[in-house]
Amino acid sequence: MSNELKIEPIGVIETPFRQPAGTPIQPSRANGAPGKARVKPQFWAGLRDLAGFERIWLIYWLHRAPGSTLLVTPFLDQQQRGVFATRAPTRPSPIGISAVRLLRIEKGILEVLDVDMIDGTPLLDIKPYVPEFDSYPGSKAGWFEESASRQRLADDRFGCAQATRDPKQC
Amino acid sequence: MSNELKIEPIGVIETPFRQPAGTPIQPSRANGAPGKARVKPQFWAGLRDLAGFERIWLIYWLHRAPGSTLLVTPFLDQQQRGVFATRAPTRPSPIGISAVRLLRIEKGILEVLDVDMIDGTPLLDIKPYVPEFDSYPGSKAGWFEESASRQRLADDRFGCAQATRDPKQC
Repeated sequence: MSNELKIEPIGVIETPFRQPAGTPIQPSRANGAPGKARVKPQFWAGLRDLAGFERIWLIYWLHRAPGSTLLVTPFLDQQQRGVFATRAPTRPSPIGISAVRLLRIEKGILEVLDVDMIDGTPLLDIKPYVPEFDSYPGSKAGWFEESASRQRLADDRFGCAQATRDPKQC
Repeated sequence: MSNELKIEPIGVIETPFRQPAGTPIQPSRANGAPGKARVKPQFWAGLRDLAGFERIWLIYWLHRAPGSTLLVTPFLDQQQRGVFATRAPTRPSPIGISAVRLLRIEKGILEVLDVDMIDGTPLLDIKPYVPEFDSYPGSKAGWFEESASRQRLADDRFGCAQATRDPKQC
């Protein structure tokens, strides 16, 4: 019996990045890159009161990631790590989360800063960033703590060389 | 044309909570509640190096939420808010994210603390919690900042009174 769950995107994320290579690896290394989350009209009512939040979580579908790889060499390291110990896109469930800065909301378009997605990324959900729930500044971060890498931008290692979920996008 | 995306869970989350009512509303209000994330054997290789992280994100399917409601009265407030300005479960894409404390990993079972999911929740993804990417302690949090509520546990407001995604679960 299949256990498959079905999701329909609530919108799309527009960013300056057309290819994996050159896209920021995380919001904290995105240098304020601007983007827009364009929400479908039937969901606009759900945006009420969101404008009071300085940051929001964008939850999205990593549509350009090739299929899942359980061991990866992450951008910030030289060693292979388990994919669940990294933020690499080649995950069994290709879901990304990014805390971006919210500038304004107008007619279902959220203007944001610090985007680290590829243009056209399907948007699945939006949540408010709440420090009480989300912020643990001193949390020990395993192999990341030994990484001295200042790399900000992705290269092509998770690009379309392999079979992808959507070959039309390569 | 349907835009539907398909996800297959990588495992299941076991918790002490059998019903929405009485389940902690967030990890930060879960009083250390213990749980287990049980990963399917075919994904165990992806767990390498995860044990060095103090906290991890569990990304999961809110399987017990009734269908989507765009305006909700959240647990911590008396007023209706847009669902995307809350962490309520009745979202168009019923995906939850929780930063839980990781105790140990053995044979694909992650022992964690601070769980706020219902027992049997489908697990979609695991990510390391990395303060550089995830922690913004001073981020302004809209209506949450005015909420003086100390409520820790959910009541039945998002329970099965309405049509649900999976009526068998009610």
